[in-house]
Order: sequence, then structure tokens, then C-alpha cells
Amino acid sequence: MTRKVCVVITARPSYSRVRTALEAIRDHPDLELQLVVAASALLDRYGGAIKVIESDGFKVDRTVYMIVEGENLVTSAKSTGFGLAELATVFDDLKPDMVITIADRYETIATSIAAAYMNIPLVHLQGGEVTGSIDEKTRHANTKLADVHLVCCESAHKRVQLLGERPERIFLTGCPSIDLARQALEADPADISAIVGRYAGVGPGIDVTQPYVVVMQHPVTTEHDQSRAQAEALIDAVEAADKPTLWFWPNVDAGSDGTSKALRVAREHGKLRRTHFYRNMQPLDFLKVLIGSRGIIGNSSVALRECAYLGVPAVNIGTRQQGRDRGRNVVDVGYGSDDIAAAIERMWTLSERPRDFIYGDGFAGRRIAEVLATADLSIEKMLTYSW
Amino acid sequence: MTRKVCVVITARPSYSRVRTALEAIRDHPDLELQLVVAASALLDRYGGAIKVIESDGFKVDRTVYMIVEGENLVTSAKSTGFGLAELATVFDDLKPDMVITIADRYETIATSIAAAYMNIPLVHLQGGEVTGSIDEKTRHANTKLADVHLVCCESAHKRVQLLGERPERIFLTGCPSIDLARQALEADPADISAIVGRYAGVGPGIDVTQPYVVVMQHPVTTEHDQSRAQAEALIDAVEAADKPTLWFWPNVDAGSDGTSKALRVAREHGKLRRTHFYRNMQPLDFLKVLIGSRGIIGNSSVALRECAYLGVPAVNIGTRQQGRDRGRNVVDVGYGSDDIAAAIERMWTLSERPRDFIYGDGFAGRRIAEVLATADLSIEKMLTYSW
Amino acid sequence: MTRKVCVVITARPSYSRVRTALEAIRDHPDLELQLVVAASALLDRYGGAIKVIESDGFKVDRTVYMIVEGENLVTSAKSTGFGLAELATVFDDLKPDMVITIADRYETIATSIAAAYMNIPLVHLQGGEVTGSIDEKTRHANTKLADVHLVCCESAHKRVQLLGERPERIFLTGCPSIDLARQALEADPADISAIVGRYAGVGPGIDVTQPYVVVMQHPVTTEHDQSRAQAEALIDAVEAADKPTLWFWPNVDAGSDGTSKALRVAREHGKLRRTHFYRNMQPLDFLKVLIGSRGIIGNSSVALRECAYLGVPAVNIGTRQQGRDRGRNVVDVGYGSDDIAAAIERMWTLSERPRDFIYGDGFAGRRIAEVLATADLSIEKMLTYSW
Amino acid sequence: MTRKVCVVITARPSYSRVRTALEAIRDHPDLELQLVVAASALLDRYGGAIKVIESDGFKVDRTVYMIVEGENLVTSAKSTGFGLAELATVFDDLKPDMVITIADRYETIATSIAAAYMNIPLVHLQGGEVTGSIDEKTRHANTKLADVHLVCCESAHKRVQLLGERPERIFLTGCPSIDLARQALEADPADISAIVGRYAGVGPGIDVTQPYVVVMQHPVTTEHDQSRAQAEALIDAVEAADKPTLWFWPNVDAGSDGTSKALRVAREHGKLRRTHFYRNMQPLDFLKVLIGSRGIIGNSSVALRECAYLGVPAVNIGTRQQGRDRGRNVVDVGYGSDDIAAAIERMWTLSERPRDFIYGDGFAGRRIAEVLATADLSIEKMLTYSW
Repeated sequence: MTRKVCVVITARPSYSRVRTALEAIRDHPDLELQLVVAASALLDRYGGAIKVIESDGFKVDRTVYMIVEGENLVTSAKSTGFGLAELATVFDDLKPDMVITIADRYETIATSIAAAYMNIPLVHLQGGEVTGSIDEKTRHANTKLADVHLVCCESAHKRVQLLGERPERIFLTGCPSIDLARQALEADPADISAIVGRYAGVGPGIDVTQPYVVVMQHPVTTEHDQSRAQAEALIDAVEAADKPTLWFWPNVDAGSDGTSKALRVAREHGKLRRTHFYRNMQPLDFLKVLIGSRGIIGNSSVALRECAYLGVPAVNIGTRQQGRDRGRNVVDVGYGSDDIAAAIERMWTLSERPRDFIYGDGFAGRRIAEVLATADLSIEKMLTYSW
Repeated sequence: MTRKVCVVITARPSYSRVRTALEAIRDHPDLELQLVVAASALLDRYGGAIKVIESDGFKVDRTVYMIVEGENLVTSAKSTGFGLAELATVFDDLKPDMVITIADRYETIATSIAAAYMNIPLVHLQGGEVTGSIDEKTRHANTKLADVHLVCCESAHKRVQLLGERPERIFLTGCPSIDLARQALEADPADISAIVGRYAGVGPGIDVTQPYVVVMQHPVTTEHDQSRAQAEALIDAVEAADKPTLWFWPNVDAGSDGTSKALRVAREHGKLRRTHFYRNMQPLDFLKVLIGSRGIIGNSSVALRECAYLGVPAVNIGTRQQGRDRGRNVVDVGYGSDDIAAAIERMWTLSERPRDFIYGDGFAGRRIAEVLATADLSIEKMLTYSW
Repeated sequence: MTRKVCVVITARPSYSRVRTALEAIRDHPDLELQLVVAASALLDRYGGAIKVIESDGFKVDRTVYMIVEGENLVTSAKSTGFGLAELATVFDDLKPDMVITIADRYETIATSIAAAYMNIPLVHLQGGEVTGSIDEKTRHANTKLADVHLVCCESAHKRVQLLGERPERIFLTGCPSIDLARQALEADPADISAIVGRYAGVGPGIDVTQPYVVVMQHPVTTEHDQSRAQAEALIDAVEAADKPTLWFWPNVDAGSDGTSKALRVAREHGKLRRTHFYRNMQPLDFLKVLIGSRGIIGNSSVALRECAYLGVPAVNIGTRQQGRDRGRNVVDVGYGSDDIAAAIERMWTLSERPRDFIYGDGFAGRRIAEVLATADLSIEKMLTYSW
Repeated sequence: MTRKVCVVITARPSYSRVRTALEAIRDHPDLELQLVVAASALLDRYGGAIKVIESDGFKVDRTVYMIVEGENLVTSAKSTGFGLAELATVFDDLKPDMVITIADRYETIATSIAAAYMNIPLVHLQGGEVTGSIDEKTRHANTKLADVHLVCCESAHKRVQLLGERPERIFLTGCPSIDLARQALEADPADISAIVGRYAGVGPGIDVTQPYVVVMQHPVTTEHDQSRAQAEALIDAVEAADKPTLWFWPNVDAGSDGTSKALRVAREHGKLRRTHFYRNMQPLDFLKVLIGSRGIIGNSSVALRECAYLGVPAVNIGTRQQGRDRGRNVVDVGYGSDDIAAAIERMWTLSERPRDFIYGDGFAGRRIAEVLATADLSIEKMLTYSW
């Protein structure tokens, strides 16, 4: 019998990350895909993921507006609560055989609780990793609410098992974001100029036939007050390095306003004259832009995951990716602008671009679909510890 | 500097369980108690805990109505969501230095998330235990959201550590409910007749100067459809045993309606003629009634915890307490009415009443207050696993 | 083109009232019925309207749990808010061409606001009447939010016009509840014993082949604290009159707990020994029970509306129906138990049962469907006043 | 006895409008001010009213985050619902003797319903006016929920009476926004350069010692899709008129995104080179900027109210202010950019600046406080119509 798989997408990067899994679920004869788009994935100013999703040919079954404005810690909690309340109705309506929650954004726990409390088997993607901010708490709480775990890397697999989950419910599938990276790499050599020409953005034009770098910086929630200071340090470093730069806008999160403000002020003061800003890019386009770049700067997980597979150099700033497995492409630096600028300079002239397959081999999507079609879905569970 | 400790009470049994800790917090020179009463603790039909709390002399700082009517799985999730949204405002308003969430009822995760997402140190009471229903998921998710863990028994201590929490953040305090048990035991020999005379209840009068038994049965969430059938089997067993019986009403939970219906129907059909029903009793009174009884029947945790300390025999039915540490006072049985009835008969004539201190020695409250006054409260954490 | 008509049912009596309109909408070639069942209409303890709706052959498109437990004024407001938030999603999903809100229960304004704010034409049923409690405020606010008004009686028609609504948007259709009354009257002489035999209820059996009376009493919200006192006075009057009595349970409303308590206490004290209690009855059955009775006592609108058409005598207590048009069947009394008892006695021996068609002629349902199929639905409006 | 007056401020312009009333309430010996700041009044991107409120020396008793992101019709409804749910808790906590709701923004009905349903006397400011968009429905619904009405002008007074409200509950106080206008006018001649120098804004510097105009344009909700087109026409007109221009940013409302987009695109295309943008200005500063200008263009109510008192010329565009009383300072135009540009040119050279006191004489604040201190506050009401 066909299993109805309900996936809740709450942000643009989450969608990018699971897109190939969605395709594999949709195309699997024993699975039926139900797609719920919620939270910042509905909002233009966070990349309007829903439009990308629909233009990619997916049917959206339900939408749930749930982000309470304010971009602070109070509204993070409130948004999660309202989302939970409404996702319950959605699940009651769609009656899925399982629900998939993705990774560790704060609002993902709304999906997890709604499913768990309604006795719907919960599948958690990308558990078992470590980072160290509020994501850390959300991610492991998701693991404890979930019945089936699809993990991306060896260390995650081990951690989920240590967390007391049954070994037969943990599957090392790799990360579906790497599937896209594989597609990007296998595609014909990209015309980067044509790609960036399709996106408006803000700021001066950048000649991407010449070397350039990419910046992607997210606010770090538990260092909320410092998000503006960190953004300013990064801006200074980018100014000092003085490279042609494509800067991608952060997602909704408590503190993102600090980053936005720092950028706005910098631009008003005539800084960042070699930087073009984008709010959004289709995942494949973004990957091609990365492949064509000298490297990525910031604190995005893309630097550790896709870029490891692709061999794109990365300057990883600060604590946001702390504890995550990383390949040879990553150089870690602190928040100081001098350190960041120096790392950018070194990255600029790298000749070696070694690839590491720690987050997957590029076939995670179909592996995930296969697990979902066959895994035992009982919802009773207990800690595996014994002594 | 005084630390503001915000405790969220969401149900009558939770209050009973932590009452001595609340007293110790209130009376501690370095602590200030903030009391939030929410969910079923506000509702008359679940025991009106708020009235007990106020009559015990506590000041209630905020109330949060959050239970959505329906008593099903959908409304459990919705209630949790609305509670979370509003607790965020409460914490924003009260600005506590730490928040305490208690045990594992479904709505307790609302407290946990609101605190964790607002960067308020979260203290979890009674983590690390195992049971096997939805409580299991909620409890361990609470652990993963919490920064400080106050556990009741050795095995819980060990499990929280295995879950990757830092050893220096886990404190074995014992359960404050045992403090009350100690008080009940140390009190003058109780006049049970006078006690029960203070509560109206429903059903025929029971002469408690003669032997009697106590029943306390909660619905088991993940066996939602079966809650009525289980209640009916228990009713049959109580009928067959034919003892004078004091039956205490279940709390709000998905499925409690099944239990209520079974009881209503049974009474309409003239059953349970030797059973008197109570919705609520002050904790100390309830403990004295237990001490004076031949034993307790049902699936309440009281049977394992307080009754171990008190040496009150217990017939524990089904899976709800599965995996929890138990003393020599407990006999486990399945859901069959014959088995239950037979166990009641055996309990009726027990001469030995051994006591076990596995859930505490009766001084947990003051120990908890001391930990709260002195513990490191940083909110950054990562899994302790290393290899 | 077919018009999608979304009707939101929030309570058992609202459903009964519009049932024939729902049938007419469903059967109209130019209309498509969308049915949303919400609030107390989903709850067993308020009559489980949803089961009746489904057993009547209607398809329910969405359900919205929205009642926050507590049955007080705070939770009335909260329930309305949560309902509004979720109905917005429902309308966004169903994309109706118009939304119908019914009468004046507190939660009906949630439907009105969701529709009005989403630019969906709002049709209000049963506006323009006057009563004098919180219903009064809700009803006229509904009128001000609505674009089309379907009213039940001449005076209501006049009042909606005086409220500044455009005359061409106000339609005197009569009340569809009268359609049912017509059907009940036109049916073969009913076997009342067979009817009541189909409902369990609580209390002693009543021989309905002999004369009996019906009681239906709702709490009056703005006299919240007095609802228990009023219920007690009515109980005393029923005791004093000492007639065989069928008592129908009130709906969810702030204060209903007072009524419930009064009844429970009365029964525990051995009162009301000739009274049988029902929580719910299918509308047609209830009407036949009314037709077969000596009259109805209480404060229900049924006494004024259906009973006017049917010629069933009514003792109307207190202020709840204040200002509403009434026929010759109604005797108004205050809250005193002596007055009520005396009025019951007089009603008991009435020989004349005059009928009045002030609330409709029994063909409102099809008239409503016709209006919905043809009315102008523009949503721009302004007060009609000019000077 | 002191009356506790709870005022709910949900937007920057609402605050500006009632500021002098807040002062008069705070300073009145028989009144105690309770201030709740909610909705867009908490959000930086809509002017951060809360900071202005606090810097004006008011104590904020509660804050309520309630705006759901999305800026569309669905989220308007959802925001209102969540606000209502939480305001109920706030009122339950603050226990005011009356609640004040202001004017007609969509979210103001949340305040009205919470108060009305909790039996707290509701005072409505600025009812009885006519405009013609969704505000129209909200405003009159607020009137029907309110117990006391404080109106700004003769025609409003008359309309509230025609709406069936009791004459003795309607008070013509004038609009407190005019009090500020009086203060601005009575102040020493303002140094406009110094004023605008205190606000950053975006865009080229404007020399305000030379003639300039002011633009303030809000999206019109029921013409949601057209908000961008209307903004573009206005931009073209401003371009064509080619005057030094100070443009004030719109508030949160479904559709405001359309306006924002039009402005962003225009600026990216090098338009509006003589326009400086402000998100916010302290009310008194804004009024002085108006006094110093050649006139105001847009659809703000400021143009009709304060500017009538001040004699500042106004070009009022489109339907948003339709039906509102206006003085000799206002010229109405349609949405065409040519018409708007022509009207701006005519305004630029006006020599006469007649003043009209239709919205008040500048002493509304103290009059309002006096009414609140003395008015009958009973909450029972019925339509006044009789025939």
C-alpha cells in the first residue's frame, strides 16, 4: 500500500537541502508526497521558497503562515507555538502515514511535536550533528521525538545511536543537498554571467568571468546582541580583502535584523562597492556560482557540506558550525576582521581543491525514498541503554 | 544576587510532586519564586490545582489558559502550541533567571521550548526515567532542551548522562513528592474518616475505618483507542474483587474521555456500588489515604514512587510505568480483568510492607533549592560524546 | 458559474437552525456547499453536532478545534482569537466565493472577521434582532462586517436597514429553523416514546404518553456569576411544579459550568426525581418532543421562534430573549422560582395553542439558497446615512 | 475611586493620534493609565513606536507581539486572532476598569472583542467616520462592540447615534491629534533643518530651508493588487513635479509590500533623486515639517485632520479618505499620475492657507480624560431604535 509522506518545508535552505529527496519520494511507486510549506519559506523577504518549489513542479498541499514579526527571541518561540497549533490541523486533515522534519531550525520542532503527539511516525533528517547554538538543542530534541532517523555522516550516525535510539531505526543516507552538488558538477560548464544575470539583487555589477568570492553569513542566535558587531567585522574584512564579492542574504532568525542593519549602514556609508547582494537564487544556480568562485566566506553549512563534495575552499567564521565534520576545504577563523581578511587572501590564491565525500556521495535522495518506503514505522520507543 | 526561579505548573499531580521544592525555593534567601499556573492546573474538572496552590499560601504570578477542548491527539498538539506562544510572553514579562519544567506531561515541552528559545536557562525535573508512551518522547526532548537536570533516582541519573548531558549539570536530588510522603508518615496517625469526609466526590459512602483499596488509572496516550476498553477491564476487576474502593479521577489527556465514559456507563448500569469517586484531594490527605489503605491499583506513578517510600502495596497495570524503577511494593499485571482481580485479592491480605528509598529520602525540596541557588547556568551546551 | 458557499457551523443549535438552508445550498445547481465544523460543534459534551451533520449526509470539508477550556470570559475571548487565526487558513485553502456566519454566538465573529479581512463576501444570517447580552454586541458587529444580510423577521429587517446597511443587500427570508418546524408538523403523528427511547440521557424514565414539559436553559453571559443562582431558582420551580420533565443541557458558554454544577448538586441531593436530562437530540426529534409537550420553560430562542410557528406554549425566563419579537405562545417571567412555578402551572392547562408566523413560513432554506445564487456580492460598502 | 484605563496602542500613527489623551489620562487624579503596546507598534520597520512611547516618558505595562509575517490578507486575519487571544490574558492580568480601542486599523478589533467578551467597558475613539475600505467595516464593528464613544467631528457624532448607540454615551471630544497640531503651531518657529537632521532616512539630502513637499501614502487594503500600481503612479507624479520631497514610509498592512517594492525598484532605476525617505519621525517633529512644507501628497488622514487645523494644503489621492469630512485645504484627485502631478504644481504656489477646526480645537486630550473619569460605564446595551 502506498505510504503518504508529509514533508514540512519551513525555509529556503531546507528546501534546497531536500529537493532531490522530494523528487525521489514523488517518483517512488510506493510513496505519495504531501508537501506543506510554512514559516519563512512563504515569505518573499527570505527568498520566497514557495515560488521555487512550485516552479520546480511540486504541488503544495498546504501553506502555514506562522512567523510572528519581531525577529527576536520572544517571537521565535511564539512562531513555533502558532506553527505547532496549526500543523496539528494540517496533519489531521492530510492524514499522512509519516511526517518528515528537517534538521534543526528552531521552527522544525513544531513539526516534530505535532506529528509525535498525534501518533504519526516522525522521520528526522540530518540529526546527530553538533553545532553549539540553539540549533543544537532543537536538533537533539527532534531526535528524541522522532521514530526514524536519516543521517548524513558517520559521526552523526554514531551520535544518534549514543542518544539511545534503536540502531535499526538509524539510516546513513548522506545529505540530499550533495545530490544537487553532484548535478551541478556534472552539468555542462556553467555560464556564470548568464546565471547571475537572471537575478536582480542590489549593488554594483560584478564581472563573474573574473575571480570572485561568495559570502553567506547567518546570525548566531545565542550571541544575539553580537550579530550586528559580527556582521560589521565581516564587512570590514570584505572591504579590506577588496575582492569582487557576491553576498547572499541571511534567513529569518532572531538577530538577523542586526545583520541587515549593519549591511544597510555600510552601504549608506559607501562601503562594499565591489559587493552585489542577492536574497535568493535557485539552488542549482547557487551551486554553480560556488563552483565558479574562489571560495565561500561566512558561517553557512554550505561551506562544510556541499563545498566539501565540490572542493570549493571555505573560510568558516566563528562558532556556528562548531563541532561539525569538515573536509580539507575548510579554514576556520574567529570573528576578527583581520583574521577573516587574511584567510580570504590565502583562499584567493589556492591551487589545490581537494574533494571529500563526508556528507554523501550524491545519491541520498533515492536512498531516503527507499528507506521511507520500507522502514518499520512503529511509534513506540524507549531508550536503548541497558546495564 | 537573588535568582528568579520561574516554575510552570500545568497539572495537579505536577504540583503535588514539587510542592516541597516550591516551599524551599520560596524560603531560600538567594532565590525568588515566580509561579505560573497553566493548562489543566487551572481547570476545575481536573482538580482545580490553582485553588490548592493558593490555599497553600503561594502567590500565582501568571495564569495561562491553553487547553483546547476535544481531549484528542489533535488538541494535545494544539494546546501545546498555544501554551508555548503565550508562555513566551510570560517569560518576556517576568524575566526569570531560570525556568523549571516538570517531568513529562505533553504540555511541559511548551515550557521547555519557550525558555530554551529565549535563552533562559532551563531546569528539568525528573528527567532520565523511562515509561514508553508519548511521555517518553516528551521527557527526553525536555532533557535535550534543558541546561540543568535534577533527577530522582540512580538509573535516571545514569540515563541523562548517557544522553550526552554534562555530568556537572546533573544532580541526583530525589523526588520532592517523597518529601510529602515523609511528612504524611511523620504526621500523627491520621483520621481517614475525617479526611475523606472533607471531600464530596460521587458514589456511595465508604467506611474507611475498615480495609479499603485505592484506584488511580490514567489513559495511555498511544493506546488511545483502547483507553475505554482498559477502563472497562479495570472496572470489571474492581467489581470482581468487590472491595470498598476509593477511585481517583484521571487528569486531562487525549483519551481520558474514554475512561470517563466507561465509568459513567458503568455507574448508570448499577456497577461500582462499593466505589466512591474523587476528582481531587489535597496531596497530604491523599497520601494519608494511601497509607491507610490495603494498597493502590492502576497505572499511576504514585504507586512506584511515594508508595515505595511508604511501603504501600501496589498493583501496577499495563505499560504506562514500563521501565521505571520500582520497589518491592509493586506487583505488575497486564490489562486482563481476571489478572487484575487476582492481584487485588493477593494485595488485600499482605502482611509485609517493605519500604524502599529509590526515589528519595524525603529531603529533595531543600536539595533542589540549594542546587538552583548555586548551579552554573550557562546555556551553551554540546553533546558530551567523544571518540 | 457555480458559487462556492462556505458555511461555518460552531454549535449544535446553529446547525439545527440552518439545516434546511444547507440542504437547499447543496442541492442548488448554481451553488457548491463547503462545510466547516468548528468550536463546540466538534465536542461531545455539547451535543457532538458533527456526528449529526455527518449522519444527515453532509460532507464536512474542514474541522477547527478552537474552544479553550475554562468556560469563563477569558477563554471565550481566547477561543474566538484562535478560531479566527485558523479560519483564515481554512478560507485561504477552500477559496470560497462567500462565507456564511450564523447569528450571534460569541465565536461567530471569528468567521466574520476572517472573511471580511480576506475580502471574501460575508453573508450574515439572523442579524437585526435584539436580546441584550453579549450576543447583542456580537450580532450587530457581525452585521457591520457583513455584505449581505438574510434576516428572519420584519423588525430585524428594519433594524439592519437602520444600522446603515444598503436596502438591496437585506433579504427577509425567514428563519430556516422554521422549515424544520414545518416538517415536524407535517410528519405523521410522532411516537414520542419511540423518539425519547433512542436517547440515553440521565435520570428517571419519563412516560411521554402522558403530559410533560420541556426545559431548556442557557447561562446568560453578562450575568455570569448569577448563572448558578438562576439555575437553582429554575430547579426549585421545576421541583415545585412537579411535572414530568425533559431537561435539555445547555451549550458551551462562559458560565455554563454554574448551571452544570447547580444541576449536579441538585441531583446528588435527590432533587429533580421526575426530570430526565438529555445532552442532545436530533433537531426533528426535538421538535416532535416539543409538539407533544405541554410547553417549554427556560430562556431558549426555540421558545420564541419554532414554538411560535408550532403554537407550543412557552414560559420565557429572564432577560436573555429581551427585545425579540414573540408570538402569543410566550409568557415572560422573571428569575423568581415562585413566578416560574406559577407560570408552569398555567401553561399546564392551556387549551388554546395559537400559531404565529413571525419568524417564517417554513420555506426559508430554499429562499436563502436562491438569494446566495443571485445576490450582488461586492465587498465595498459605506453607511447609507445621508443628510 | 481611581479608574484604571487600559489603552492598547497597535501602530505608530495611532500613538501619535492619542498622545495628548494619554498624558491627560496619566495626569488625571481619578484615572490610572495602563499602557499595552502591540502589533506594528513594537516593530522597528514600522516606526518602532514603542521607543517613542518610552522616550516620551510613558511606562509600558505589557507588550504583545501579534503580527504574523506575510503582509497579505490571510496574515491580517491571523494576526488579529492571535492578538485577541493574548490580549485576553493581558486584560485578565491587568484588570482594567475600561479599555480603549483606537479608530479602525484591522487589528483594533482584537482589543474590542477581548474587552467586550470579558465584560470590561469598551471605549472607542474616533468612531462614526466613513472611509470605504476594510477600515470601514472594522470601525463600525468597533462601534457596535463599544460602550462609550468619543468622536472627533460632528458628522461622526451623528453617525454613531444613527448606528443605534445611546446619545448619552457619545461624546464629541475632537481628535487628540489636533492637540499636538496646536502645540506644534504654538511652538517657536521651528528650525526644520535641525529637525530633519536628527533622522537618518534614505536618499539624497533635501535643503528644507527651501520649499519642499511631503508625501505619505498607505496601501488600500481592498485594492490589494493595485497597491503597487498606485505607488508607481504616485512615483511618476512626484518625478514629474520634480520638487524637493520628504517621503514617509507606510505602515504594516496587507499590500504594503507592493508599495515598498515599487519604491525600491524606482530607486534602483535612479528615480526619485530629489526624494528623501523617512520611516519614522516623532509626531511633533513631523507636524513641524508639515507646517514648513508647501503641502502634503498621498492618502493619509493627516492631510484631512491635522492639516485642516494647520492650514497645510493637501493633495488627497484616491478612495482611502472617501467620505471623511475635509476642510478647505484639501484637493481630491484620482490615481492618474498626470492629475496628481498637476495638483502638486497648483499646491506649490498657493498663497492662501485657510484653517478649519472640524476635527477639534486642540484640547481633545483633557476632554477625553474628563469623560473617562466620569462617564457611566455599564456594559449592557441595546439598539436605540424604536417605532
